[in-house]
Amino acid sequence: MARTSLSGFPEWLPAQRIVEQAVLDVIAETFELHGYASVATRAVEPLTELLRKGETSKEVYVLSRLQADPSDPAAESDADRLGLHFDLTVPFARYVLENAGHLAFPFKRYQIQPVWRGERPQDGRFREFVQADIDVVGDGTLPFHYEVEVPIVAARALGALRELGLPPVRVLVNNRKVAEGFYRSIGLDRPEEVLRIVDKLAKVGPARVAGMLADEVGASSDQAEACLALASLSGGVEVVERVRSLAAEHRVVLDDDPAAELLEDGLAELGELLRQAEDRAPGVVTADLSVARGLDYYTGSVYETVLLGHENLGSICSGGRYDSLASDGRRTFPGVGISIGVSRVLSRLFSAGLVEATRAVPTAVLVAVADEATRPASDAVADALRDRGIAADVAPSAAKFGKQIRVADRRGIPYVWFLSTQDDGAVRHEVKDIRSGEQVEADPATWEPPAQDRRPRAVPTPG
Amino acid sequence: MARTSLSGFPEWLPAQRIVEQAVLDVIAETFELHGYASVATRAVEPLTELLRKGETSKEVYVLSRLQADPSDPAAESDADRLGLHFDLTVPFARYVLENAGHLAFPFKRYQIQPVWRGERPQDGRFREFVQADIDVVGDGTLPFHYEVEVPIVAARALGALRELGLPPVRVLVNNRKVAEGFYRSIGLDRPEEVLRIVDKLAKVGPARVAGMLADEVGASSDQAEACLALASLSGGVEVVERVRSLAAEHRVVLDDDPAAELLEDGLAELGELLRQAEDRAPGVVTADLSVARGLDYYTGSVYETVLLGHENLGSICSGGRYDSLASDGRRTFPGVGISIGVSRVLSRLFSAGLVEATRAVPTAVLVAVADEATRPASDAVADALRDRGIAADVAPSAAKFGKQIRVADRRGIPYVWFLSTQDDGAVRHEVKDIRSGEQVEADPATWEPPAQDRRPRAVPTPG
Repeated sequence: MARTSLSGFPEWLPAQRIVEQAVLDVIAETFELHGYASVATRAVEPLTELLRKGETSKEVYVLSRLQADPSDPAAESDADRLGLHFDLTVPFARYVLENAGHLAFPFKRYQIQPVWRGERPQDGRFREFVQADIDVVGDGTLPFHYEVEVPIVAARALGALRELGLPPVRVLVNNRKVAEGFYRSIGLDRPEEVLRIVDKLAKVGPARVAGMLADEVGASSDQAEACLALASLSGGVEVVERVRSLAAEHRVVLDDDPAAELLEDGLAELGELLRQAEDRAPGVVTADLSVARGLDYYTGSVYETVLLGHENLGSICSGGRYDSLASDGRRTFPGVGISIGVSRVLSRLFSAGLVEATRAVPTAVLVAVADEATRPASDAVADALRDRGIAADVAPSAAKFGKQIRVADRRGIPYVWFLSTQDDGAVRHEVKDIRSGEQVEADPATWEPPAQDRRPRAVPTPG
Repeated sequence: MARTSLSGFPEWLPAQRIVEQAVLDVIAETFELHGYASVATRAVEPLTELLRKGETSKEVYVLSRLQADPSDPAAESDADRLGLHFDLTVPFARYVLENAGHLAFPFKRYQIQPVWRGERPQDGRFREFVQADIDVVGDGTLPFHYEVEVPIVAARALGALRELGLPPVRVLVNNRKVAEGFYRSIGLDRPEEVLRIVDKLAKVGPARVAGMLADEVGASSDQAEACLALASLSGGVEVVERVRSLAAEHRVVLDDDPAAELLEDGLAELGELLRQAEDRAPGVVTADLSVARGLDYYTGSVYETVLLGHENLGSICSGGRYDSLASDGRRTFPGVGISIGVSRVLSRLFSAGLVEATRAVPTAVLVAVADEATRPASDAVADALRDRGIAADVAPSAAKFGKQIRVADRRGIPYVWFLSTQDDGAVRHEVKDIRSGEQVEADPATWEPPAQDRRPRAVPTPG
């Protein structure tokens, strides 16, 4: 990581930035191949928008103008104070409401931007970080099949990053309807509370969760045991049948009770998602009935993602289905989305030494300068290469050739181009691969570097 | 422009965002071809960094945490309050100082990011806007030839945008040494003051400028006349000789006086810049001795750019040479750079109707769905196309085909793909160009759209 005077605000050195760009390009390309359109929103939102979810208030950075002019009619009143967005969902929901008349629904968008949270920085958690989100939003209704598509697209984007050195991921899925239907079916009628408690399982262990379920939602020991058993289930599509059996063991309602129907509805969705994901992104998506985070505000499928071997990083890609992503009172816009924590992933890729750039500059060729009087001839060679899409630079000074080669070497530029005037006045062009030392005659109008040398690439660190 | 509830914070509709991305891609590609490496810096800087130039203080947005915890040792003291950067030069200078040990000098970087200014919004001036900067920074010294390169690269980037519909530009250049050397040579020894006054020429006219020169720097009528005559000069390399003649007419110092030498030094630089620019970016770069903005803090060449036919927009691309871009007291880093005002250019392109996207989504093909039971077959076609880099989407619902075609039409998707099961059980694939109505049999494993249909493009608005 680049040295930086402010903790929580990561910056990358030029070679790391090349990796970041490669990662973002792979993600954006995957999103575009699946029909998602790019949207960028402003960095700021009215504080009133940002504070709808009360629990995030302490994370918000609020803006003020250093020398706000009180006589300015546009001076900030409390009502229109601005804050930096802490995610890309709140601004997207506002964008959808403001531009609904210009958008075609279902509207599929991706958005790759920084977000800001005024939290205390710690490993993998930053105050400024880049997220890459996709969401599909409908006008009034949104078919379930988008709940299948979204985690598949995320799995493919993360899968495509394996070529750059990203370890494999596992996308964990659950469904709010399954959890709520299950809890209600066994006689627990405060599902949000149950979810909040079960969410602590990894942190406090099953015994304390059972105790909290008894104390806080009045669960019997059988009910608590059923909740823990549900949370222990994970795996492929066979999980559906195991949930059904577990529910049958503990159920206190009839088949046609709304709770039982909600559970069946959720299990049908979960099964469909698992089957299709296995078909279209094999080996990546699994059910994990312990995933409870977000289930209190999502209304259908919910997703989390772990980086295998780096589970301690937490989820690197999360999301789910909202029946009301946005609403203006008249129209309601349901949505489903997922968000890749790009900065979190990058910082681990760098700290674990998993990926590197083949060089620190775009330049493929450094054109040497024999003396300052002939710099225009070197510029002309560089321009001829650029005209054919080959990134070129000209040596900063007409130093000794050995020093000019070191200029290229320090930046990882693979080729140095030399011009020399022959006795007959003709200019001889030669290009040297400074890695192998091989030097050959070349024509600026036709010479091509091998494809893998044209631009810097992000590659897994060797060894 | 997208409807937005906050003036000064522009947002684009999806088709406009495609134009923005195309513009940014062209600019970034031009920068990379010339060897500039991408850098991204955090959005915030310590207020102390931002306020070094006193005159910008009122433009700065200051951050505070909504619920800052006073017991937090990291709570903001006045000394480490943060503000949003108002340009990309201040953060880059700080980045260079912090990472000097990891950078190879001369270091060429580009940076494309939003910046924020708490100004009152007006036409072409925003509170949040995107800039695209290049800078070359040296360690201790920086050769003059980079002052030639920077405006040529900018001229080429803006020239490449003409294919997208940008009108031609004129890059206006001047040189601090010429102005200062001239003023001192004619006996005016407060060049910053003279520049500040001459900068008002376009606004207040020559008579008032002459009056202010007399009142504020004690200029005689001959001196004021010489300053106005200098500011009236513009054109190609012949300008150099005209400045020299003008100086000779009014000069009060000897040939070897430092002022005369400064003037000659500046004229040599200006002439060299104009000659090379004419060679390498013909017809774009001209001298304009009335350009005074920035000359009070730049130390050599200075650049402004007008969009022809849209001069009222102001400069869309400005910069110059600093002898001290950054300094830590021990080392000094001279720099030269230029900044394209991307949002300003885009907003004019949109408001003048000069450019449009060929469609509003990346999707080239919409795969129709005959009924929901066969959606997986449609998904498989879309996936086969995506595997070959063709952006595809699947119809939101198994509506009547006419309605599915309208789904494509509303988004500008050029092709709709149909699957039908034949009597013998085989699936027949057909693809329809919905613009021409032509429908042909096709194989998802091999069919290709014409190159111009693969992705949306930004093109000049016809007519």
